[in-house]
Parts: sequence; structure tokens; C-alpha cells
Amino acid sequence: MSSSFGTDFRVTTFGESHCFGVGAIVDGVPAGLALTEEDLQPQLDRRRPGQSKVTTDRKEGDVVKILSGTENGLTLGTPIGLLVHNRDQRPGDYKEMSNVPRPSHADFTYQMKYGIRASSGGGRSSARETIARVAAGAIAEKILVERFGIEIVSWVSAAGDITAPDPDVLTISREQVDGNQVRCSDQAASEKMMAAIVAARDGQDSIGGVVSCVCRNVPAGLGEPVFDKLEAKLAHAMMSIPATKGFEIGSGFAGTELLGSQHNDPFVQKGERLGTMTNHSGGIQGGISNGEPLVFRIAFKPPATIGKAQQTATFEGDDAVLEAKGRHDPCVVPRAVPIVEGMAALVVLDLAMRQAGRSL
Amino acid sequence: MSSSFGTDFRVTTFGESHCFGVGAIVDGVPAGLALTEEDLQPQLDRRRPGQSKVTTDRKEGDVVKILSGTENGLTLGTPIGLLVHNRDQRPGDYKEMSNVPRPSHADFTYQMKYGIRASSGGGRSSARETIARVAAGAIAEKILVERFGIEIVSWVSAAGDITAPDPDVLTISREQVDGNQVRCSDQAASEKMMAAIVAARDGQDSIGGVVSCVCRNVPAGLGEPVFDKLEAKLAHAMMSIPATKGFEIGSGFAGTELLGSQHNDPFVQKGERLGTMTNHSGGIQGGISNGEPLVFRIAFKPPATIGKAQQTATFEGDDAVLEAKGRHDPCVVPRAVPIVEGMAALVVLDLAMRQAGRSL
Amino acid sequence: MSSSFGTDFRVTTFGESHCFGVGAIVDGVPAGLALTEEDLQPQLDRRRPGQSKVTTDRKEGDVVKILSGTENGLTLGTPIGLLVHNRDQRPGDYKEMSNVPRPSHADFTYQMKYGIRASSGGGRSSARETIARVAAGAIAEKILVERFGIEIVSWVSAAGDITAPDPDVLTISREQVDGNQVRCSDQAASEKMMAAIVAARDGQDSIGGVVSCVCRNVPAGLGEPVFDKLEAKLAHAMMSIPATKGFEIGSGFAGTELLGSQHNDPFVQKGERLGTMTNHSGGIQGGISNGEPLVFRIAFKPPATIGKAQQTATFEGDDAVLEAKGRHDPCVVPRAVPIVEGMAALVVLDLAMRQAGRSL
Amino acid sequence: MSSSFGTDFRVTTFGESHCFGVGAIVDGVPAGLALTEEDLQPQLDRRRPGQSKVTTDRKEGDVVKILSGTENGLTLGTPIGLLVHNRDQRPGDYKEMSNVPRPSHADFTYQMKYGIRASSGGGRSSARETIARVAAGAIAEKILVERFGIEIVSWVSAAGDITAPDPDVLTISREQVDGNQVRCSDQAASEKMMAAIVAARDGQDSIGGVVSCVCRNVPAGLGEPVFDKLEAKLAHAMMSIPATKGFEIGSGFAGTELLGSQHNDPFVQKGERLGTMTNHSGGIQGGISNGEPLVFRIAFKPPATIGKAQQTATFEGDDAVLEAKGRHDPCVVPRAVPIVEGMAALVVLDLAMRQAGRSL
Repeated sequence: MSSSFGTDFRVTTFGESHCFGVGAIVDGVPAGLALTEEDLQPQLDRRRPGQSKVTTDRKEGDVVKILSGTENGLTLGTPIGLLVHNRDQRPGDYKEMSNVPRPSHADFTYQMKYGIRASSGGGRSSARETIARVAAGAIAEKILVERFGIEIVSWVSAAGDITAPDPDVLTISREQVDGNQVRCSDQAASEKMMAAIVAARDGQDSIGGVVSCVCRNVPAGLGEPVFDKLEAKLAHAMMSIPATKGFEIGSGFAGTELLGSQHNDPFVQKGERLGTMTNHSGGIQGGISNGEPLVFRIAFKPPATIGKAQQTATFEGDDAVLEAKGRHDPCVVPRAVPIVEGMAALVVLDLAMRQAGRSL
Repeated sequence: MSSSFGTDFRVTTFGESHCFGVGAIVDGVPAGLALTEEDLQPQLDRRRPGQSKVTTDRKEGDVVKILSGTENGLTLGTPIGLLVHNRDQRPGDYKEMSNVPRPSHADFTYQMKYGIRASSGGGRSSARETIARVAAGAIAEKILVERFGIEIVSWVSAAGDITAPDPDVLTISREQVDGNQVRCSDQAASEKMMAAIVAARDGQDSIGGVVSCVCRNVPAGLGEPVFDKLEAKLAHAMMSIPATKGFEIGSGFAGTELLGSQHNDPFVQKGERLGTMTNHSGGIQGGISNGEPLVFRIAFKPPATIGKAQQTATFEGDDAVLEAKGRHDPCVVPRAVPIVEGMAALVVLDLAMRQAGRSL
Repeated sequence: MSSSFGTDFRVTTFGESHCFGVGAIVDGVPAGLALTEEDLQPQLDRRRPGQSKVTTDRKEGDVVKILSGTENGLTLGTPIGLLVHNRDQRPGDYKEMSNVPRPSHADFTYQMKYGIRASSGGGRSSARETIARVAAGAIAEKILVERFGIEIVSWVSAAGDITAPDPDVLTISREQVDGNQVRCSDQAASEKMMAAIVAARDGQDSIGGVVSCVCRNVPAGLGEPVFDKLEAKLAHAMMSIPATKGFEIGSGFAGTELLGSQHNDPFVQKGERLGTMTNHSGGIQGGISNGEPLVFRIAFKPPATIGKAQQTATFEGDDAVLEAKGRHDPCVVPRAVPIVEGMAALVVLDLAMRQAGRSL
Repeated sequence: MSSSFGTDFRVTTFGESHCFGVGAIVDGVPAGLALTEEDLQPQLDRRRPGQSKVTTDRKEGDVVKILSGTENGLTLGTPIGLLVHNRDQRPGDYKEMSNVPRPSHADFTYQMKYGIRASSGGGRSSARETIARVAAGAIAEKILVERFGIEIVSWVSAAGDITAPDPDVLTISREQVDGNQVRCSDQAASEKMMAAIVAARDGQDSIGGVVSCVCRNVPAGLGEPVFDKLEAKLAHAMMSIPATKGFEIGSGFAGTELLGSQHNDPFVQKGERLGTMTNHSGGIQGGISNGEPLVFRIAFKPPATIGKAQQTATFEGDDAVLEAKGRHDPCVVPRAVPIVEGMAALVVLDLAMRQAGRSL
């Protein structure tokens, strides 16, 4: 099944870029939780295009409506229906692409898979699909905060070839991240990143980047070996976000160059619990959370849709030059921050519920 | 559910390091396929410890038996039961670790999750669990070869800080990979890797590495957006293998530093099909295979169990020094090669069946 | 997961009786299918209350809107979002029941399960939930008609103690069924049923009934032993419809009184295929369709909400007398007909897709 | 997926009638539970053929072995591998049936679905498959007893046209049921049933019957509306048992003839909890347990394999007469009793775990 994610806390989404709307059904929400649209809108606003000069200037209100599952501001335990209307349902910006599949975009593969594709925009492969993830993730996050005091914070750690110094994962906050338009943890780096993004935009080009994420106060014991290990579910979740090319937990690829004696995280008593002195493990051992912060990174490629002329081919294989029209992000990572946070919340909550089920 | 993987082609596994045996039930196998134990044993032999001086010298026969699902060497369409006996069921090598959780191993997290853990070895977190993956993967691979001519080849692309030059992914073969004990694609690099592994072993230490993989002849159209995208399922599969810390598809993290105009893969006619001139996408666009080779990389950390003395703490938080006894791999990547191939086969076949289901 | 049904063709629903609306996401719909709201509305109209004097006289328009997944009247292969608005969102008819759980209704069990319940109507246990099933089932049925020529027809075979003679399952049609307001296959029986329903209504009481169903032209080979046998999935589907108390396939409970030599269906050549002379099996052997018509029956209890005074207890255990206000069906079986048809279509299509996946 | 059942507590089975063995993987078993083969064997012995003159006189030891998931008699929280060897792997009793599909047996449908089938016995459709259900169910039942004090008792309530009077569902015990070879709740009826079974056997024929079941002390709140309602999951489970033709919960089909005012179960305080005066609901309202005993009935057809000559057709459609050789049960209901109990335990435990997951 392609449009559902999660086992006990399960999100199912719908919606293309230019249909009536996008939305989700969130099933498994515990009953009696205070929940209104105001709990969901802030993260949607952080995801929304048109926030700053480094994102697309399309105006999308992206106002979410709760269709079911609550009464008098409390959840009923029944599925939450969510709907966000699409404002522009049929723009003409995409006509020139009808016979020329955009290089590295999903035009070609959707056509091959389904034998048909949405005539405009990215259809289901559009980033608008992530609205449903963010709204559902905000529900999950609220539960995680109330039940466990979990804190989830993402930030931009690289844009193009500019890498920010690592922040203190124990203290970094969304306020700090939102202190600059790039959502970089470091002010100096953010300015360089901004310049790089603007340069790409002005060159009708695009750049990629890296989003990092920390989940604090995750209790030890979450993750379902052997196939639904915590890092495996996180990787699945993150690599399902459009434009992702890589995932690392803890030391990641760099950790492969260390000796075991350097990489191992020695145990040490931390207040009431046994913790580790270092955190190369990224908060996970054997697929199960160990009580340390979860720390992971996601690679996002440069957006495929660019205005710059590209030499390519038509569906029929004839030579063609493509210059994409329309309004597109020169760099997706600032807006990817709340998407990563939402997907992280979905993973952690689902695994927390699966672990709770064991304690009947 | 933790011990099952796949939707239409579904593998469920069981077995700890020192119980009666490890095995799997493989459900969804098409009927009428020629299948005997001889189809499964070669990959198990490549995974087996004791193959060379760079792997543990434990002797494990790891002979697989098909318990059900075939008759006269043909599959019946019913579930295939697989069993591999454990030879040494209760060794004494692990006693000194009973009160000292191994740093960066699963001793602590299993205890936190389950309130109990296997008294010896890694229990379910042991690498012996991967036997079931390899056996099941060999079934999937056989089907992929027969129905699509798909070729899956993995190799060691880095060990410690030694990185091999990229091979030609269009031609690299298992014979070539098995040409050296490290399973590196490059002979010169393999010798340096071997030296590094031996040095780590002699120092009672361990090193990590990177395994790369290519899947050739995968038809366009596989992958189930938006949550079961092909790269998301591959990431899930690979990050569920013990000791993994990272996953990259195509350009991976390095691709984030390119401009869109550099990263995009222009289309070009290739014989009968539309292909791409470059393959930064790693054979996937929008979560769906595009007909180009799937290319991805997996980071493996240095094994956590080392003989070298480590300053750590007991379960109760008291200071302790741990020197692990027993026979352990100084580097897992050579033996990880068939595991990665097996998991890749499980992912591709399951998605191929899901796609076929659409064409009723 | 509670709100999803199906594996490859999967329906997820949302909505209570008095929230904003009810709806569904239908995932796995093959691409390129002609589909508009006009394909869904007829079955919704057959399910709608207020059609006749034997159903509740509440007026519910129940107009379905397709939110996503189609363009220019063709399916895109992406999930179909469906929405039906609730007209009366907060009626006052239910106030007297707030502290007295309706006998044999879900008020008590929802309160026990969730610790909260919708303040009015049946909440998620309301029959309005079945709107989503009917709409989704209409999509499935359209596919079954186009690809296999499958015909699904349900009818009322009993109401209260009046049982209609068995119709010819090879020819019975929806037109014939809709020939009377009860949707009984037999005109004489329908008149007695109508009288019984009216008598119950006039007595502020209710009566139950039996709905029968036939699926013709189902190809042999559908059903997934051993747990997802065709009859097991049908039973699951039908017993998930509100107010159901029993399910029979083929000979059902009466068949237990036959000898094997009487019950067995002998094989006989029927044109191009091997068929059976009798159909005690109800079209299924060993959990797999055999090419004969699927024939099954579902028992519906008398509706629990009645105007007649009932001696019962409050949530606190105090004696109470309940006289339900509001507009309620005295008998649900006429409106259950399209619901049964819809659920049957969901089961058969999902199993057809799973079988197709095997033939890659 | 066909060979798995359950969501959080999940059983996956394998094995044909004449392969190496049958078995299961039971995933989701809570850790720290005392569990050895002795907990599983008693129900297997009740299921075993050759117990009495009314069952087949084949001798099958059916001794279960736990392959994994326990240590020192305690569960580890890891999957339990279970194996029961098949004794006679290739008998010759079935040769005459190779070209004549047995009427109302699965020979024809397996051939149609898979294009191949086991050459002897019923293959996967054999009743031997139920061994895995019974063993897994015994694990589930042990957990239900320890955590909730749940009691599950099944009995034969009808055989052929002989129906036993209803026992007291509050007190009926397995000891009482095992007081006669038919496993009927009533001694007088059991003797008539025995005579009917013997007569059928002597006539080379077979008879059907009905198995009833009660689950006592099930807490209120189990069941997952709207699709995984408790009665829907029970129906699914029971109708997946070989030879079943019907399922009823509570009042069942007979309840359709009552008025609502007769059928409704009035609430009444029962000690600490709110209970109902009658139990037409069978312990379930709105798909959720209400704290009253679950009571349901399952119809089993007469076994299809009989020695009596049957006029039928070959696979090619030619006329044929079949006289089945081999040793077959003239009536399956006595041996179905532990199978029904096992499947009931699987359903209730899975739903209890899903409900517990909600209370994180």
C-alpha cells in the first residue's frame, strides 16, 4: 500500500498538486486529547511556500480543516480527517512540459508506472503532498509532548557546499532555527547559505542541502527488531520525502572510518538512568532507542525543476531543450525542516504505541 | 510487527544466536518455480563466518533445509519454511558480559525493551539473524532473474579510511567481487583494506566500511509512492541490517553540493527505451524505478564487540572495564555483501508483485 | 488498524454521524479508469435514508465529491479522496440519552473503550459511516465490471419472521430487487415484509432481517489461503457492517445437516470450464473461488434504537427508563443492500489484485 | 498475505500435509512469560487424529518443538519458532485422485489458482495446517489467562441433525466437554451424535456439525471499529478454518426474527461493572466487547473426502466415478474444538494488545 504509513498510529494521505485538495486520515489517535486546527497550523505555516525570498513566491494559504474525530476540541479516538484546499487548481505553467519529461523529475516514471499522469505540476509527486505529512505529524508530536515530553527539532545543516558547524543538540530549539530564513542553526553559515540560494535562483538554477534532526527525551525501548528497527523506520520515513538522496543516523558514513574502540559509546550513569558518554550511535543500539537523543541527517538533492535551459529528450526520444516555467523553490531544505519533524513524530509515536501494546 | 518484511512477497524470520536454529517463512512465492536447497546455499556460504582470515574463525555450517512449500523441486505457491540449525547452542564465552552491557551493542536496549535478554551472544540482535534474510533473499533473487533478468551485485567500496575507486556498475560481477577476500571491487584497494582489517584484529579492535550495490535490468515503474517509494523501501531494508549507520541512493550526500543543472539526469534514447545520460538519480525518480541501474551505498559501523579493554559501566551504573572474549569479526563488510544483495532482492520483488497486481 | 480495509486495494474511512462529513481514501485504484461522481452516486442513493416509508424520514442528500486521484474523468493511479458532507451537524435529538446508554447500542462500549464518546447520534458507530464503504465499493465494482464482467446483486431474503423464496441467483438483477421498497426478490413476500416493517414502526419497535448476495462471473483462483480465504474475507467484511450477527456461505448452517454425499458438489463440464452441478460450496472450495457464483447471507439484528420504553440502567447503574427520540429506521435491511454489495466488491477486487501480483 | 494472522500479536504458518513438517512463527509475544512445549502439547493432543473411534485412525504424534524465542523456560520477547514433524511424508493413498478433483475439496481450486498442487493429501488445504493454529493459539491463551483470567471453552453443539441443548455458558468447562468423545456439552446428545457419526463412517459417508464457543472474562473495550470489529475478526478467524460454512455471534440468524424490544439487552449493575440482563449481543456492541461473555457458533460442513462412490468429472471434463481411499474423519467437529479455541485466543489477544497500545 502506497499512501499509508505506520502500524498502530497510521496516516493515510491523498491529493495531487492541482486537484481539489490534499489531506489525510489519521487513525489510532488516542481519545481525550485536546486538539484543534490551531495545533496543526503552525507547522503548516513553516512548510508553506512564499515565506521568504529563498522559497517559491507562490501564495498558498494551506489552511487545514479537521473534518472528523474531534468534538468540543477533544479527540474521540476515531479517525481524524484532515483537508487543505488547493487554491490554484489548473494553472497553465506546465504546458511546455507535456511532451518533455523534466530531467530527474517524476514525469517520466509516473508515465511508465501508471500509463497516465497529471497534466500539470508534479501531480502526486508534488511537494504539496507533504502538507498531509506535516498536519498528521503535528498531531503525533502533540501526543509525544504530552505523554513523554519529547522534543523534536530539525535544522538546515548544509546548503550546497556550505556546511554549518554542529549545534548543541541538547539545547537547539525551533525558535533558534527560525532565527534566520534558511533555518540554519548557525547565523554566520545561514548568511552564506542565503547568498548561495539567491545566486542559484538568479541563475535559474537550484541547490541541494542537508537537514539534521534531533529527538530528545525519547524513552529507551522503542523500535521493533528485526525489520522495524527504529533507524530503519526513520530511514523509511525520511527517504519517502520528495528529493531525498541519503540518510544517516549518529556517526553515519563518517563513522565507518573510526575504530570500534573510538566509535563505541561507553556507558555512564546519568542521574536516574544509564546513559552513554558519547553518542555515535545516534540514540539507537540494536534497533532500539537507548534514552539518548536521536540524531540523524537527510540529504536533499537540488530541485529538478529549473528555469535554465536543459538539453534532454521528448517522451519519444527526440532531442529537446527544456526551460521550465512556473514558480519553483531554488532550494527545498528550509521548508523541509517541518516535514522532517513531522515524519520523525509519526515514527516515534507509532513505535511507542507498539511498545505500549506489549505491556498489556 | 517486527519480524516480517514485505507486502505481497513477505518474509517472516525467527531465531537467536544460541537457540535451536534460525529460519524463515517466505510467503507469496509464485508457484511452479524450480527451487531446491542448492539455490539457497551459495549465498549462505558467502555470508558464513570462517571463510577467510578477515572474518571470525567460528565454524558455522549454516546448511539450510526447506521444510515446506515445494514438491519434486517445484514451488507449490504455498509458504516456504526454511531452517538452519545452530551448532553451538550454549557457549560460555559471554559470561563476563552478563552484568556489563557491551558499549554500542544491543545488550542494554534489549534489556530495557523486554526486561530480559538472551544470556549469551547477541540473542536476536546477533548477526546470525541475517541467515534468514540471505536464504529468503536467494529465493527472491531467483525469481527476479527468471522473470526479468535482474542482476544484483554488491561489493565493499570502503573499509576504514580506505576507499576503492568506483567500478563500472554496468559490468561488475559477483565473480569479480569474490576475487579477493575483502570482496572489494578493486584489487589494489582490497590489499590495503585487508591490511587494515588485520591490523584492527591484531589490535583487538574493529573497523567499519561501506557496501555498495547495483541492481541492473530493473524495469521502469517499480515503487509505490508516496510512502513506499523504491528508495524508501531500500533504505528501510538496508537500515534494518545490523550495524548500519547510513544509506545513500545515487548521488547521495555528495549530490547535495551540486547545482540542479549539474545534478539533473538528461533523457536520451537508449535502444528501445528512454534512458538517462547520467545516473545521479540512482535509477529512481519520484520513488519509482526509471529503468537505469539502481545504485546505492550502505555505511556499516565498526563492530561493537572488541577484545580491547573498554572503560564503561555496569547495568547498575558502577564503573567497569570490559574486555570481550569470544570470536568476533574485526570488520563485517565482506560478509555483509550477500546480506545486502538479499535484502535488495526482497524489496525489488515485492514491489514488482505490487505493480503486477495493478495490471489485473 | 481499525479504519482501513484491504491489502492491495485498500479503503480507509473517516467520519462520525454529526461531524463535518464522512469520507474515504481509496488507494490502489488502477490508472486510466473512467471515473466521476456519477459512478458513485447511484449506490449512495440506494443507501440514503428517506427513500421510502419503510426507512427513516431523515433527509440526507449524501452527495459525494471526488477530491483527488482523477483528472479529466480518468483515474491517475493515485489515491481517490472522497467526501460527503454531513448536513445536520448538531441535532438535539439525543440529549435524553446522555446518561443512559442505549441497550444493545454502542454508547456503553465506546465509552468503555475510549473514555469519551460523541455527544449525539452514534458517533462513529452510526450507520452514516457506511456511506464511505458504499462510495468506495462503487469504485471497486466499476473495475470488476470492466475487467471481469462481474455482477454483484444483493437482496432482502428475510425481514422479521417472513422469509422469501430463493430467487434464481443466475439471473436476479438490481432492477428486479428495486422493484419493491423492501428490496425483496419476491413480490408477494415483499408485501408481507412491508406490513411487518410498518407494524414495527407503528409500535415504536424494530425488526431484523437477512440480506443475501450473489457475485457472478468471479474467475476461479481468487482467495489467499490459509488466513485470507475468500469466505474469511467476505465474513470479515460483512461482519464489520453495523448490526450484523451472522454470516453464511453456500449451504451455511443448514448444510451441517447434510451427509457428505449429499453436500458435495460434483464436477461437470460447463462450456469451456469445469463447473459444479450443485453449489452448496457457495462458489468457494479451500478458500479459493471455483468459478461458480459466490452466494452468501448476512443476518441483521433489529435496530437497537427504538421509541418504545425500555427498562434499563444509567451509566452509574441506577434504574432508568429510556424512550429514544429521533428518526430511526425500523428495519435496516432495505438500505443494507448496497452496503453488502459494496463490501463484496472491495473483497473480490482486493483478492483479484493479489492474485494478479502473483503472475508477474 | 495469506499465511499471517494478527497485527500486534501475529502468527505466520507454513506446511503441507506431506512435506517435512508444519509450524509457525509467533511474533509479538510479551517477554518474561513462562513457556515450554508442555504448555502447547495438551491442545495439540486434543486436535490430534486417532483419539477415538469417531476420528480418523491415522496415527500422528504431532509433538511440537519450540525452535526459538525462549531461554530457560521464559520468553525473550523475540519470535517463537514452532515445528511439528510430519511422520508420513509420501503415502500412496491419494494416487487415484490425481486426475479426478475431489468434489467440494480444494484439489480443483488449488490447481486453478497455482497451476500446480501437492500430489497427495490436501497439501496446504489439509487439516494438518491447523496444527500451527492450535500451537500458536495455546501461547495466546496462556497470556490471556495470566493477564486477564480469560477462559475460552468450545464444544460441539450439533452433529448432523442432532442438536444439543444449550449449556450454561458461565460454567461450561473443558473437562466437561472432554467427558465424551464427541466433545458435546450434553451427555444424552453426545450418544446420539456418536451413533450418527459411526453410521456415517460405516456408510463411507460423512456428517457436518456446529461448534460453539464462549470466552469469559474478556474486558470491555476490545475491538477496533470500524473494520476490525471484534465480531468481524472472530468471523474472519473462524471462517479461515477448513470446512467452515457459517458464523454467528450472540443471537445470530435466529435473532433476526425478534423485535428490537425483545432483542435489546437491558443494562443492569453487576457487582462493580455495568452488565446486561440478557446477552443477545454475544458480548459485543458496536464491534467492541462489553464485558459479557463472548458467545459464537461456527458451522462445519460434512468432510468432502468420502469412500462412497461419487459421480463426478475429471480435470478434463470427462465423466468419472471417485471412491476416495485413505483414512478420513467422518466428522470434524470433535477435533475442531481446540482449533476454534486457539483462533479465538489469537483474536482476543491481538485486540487486547492493540487496545493497550492506545494507553501509552
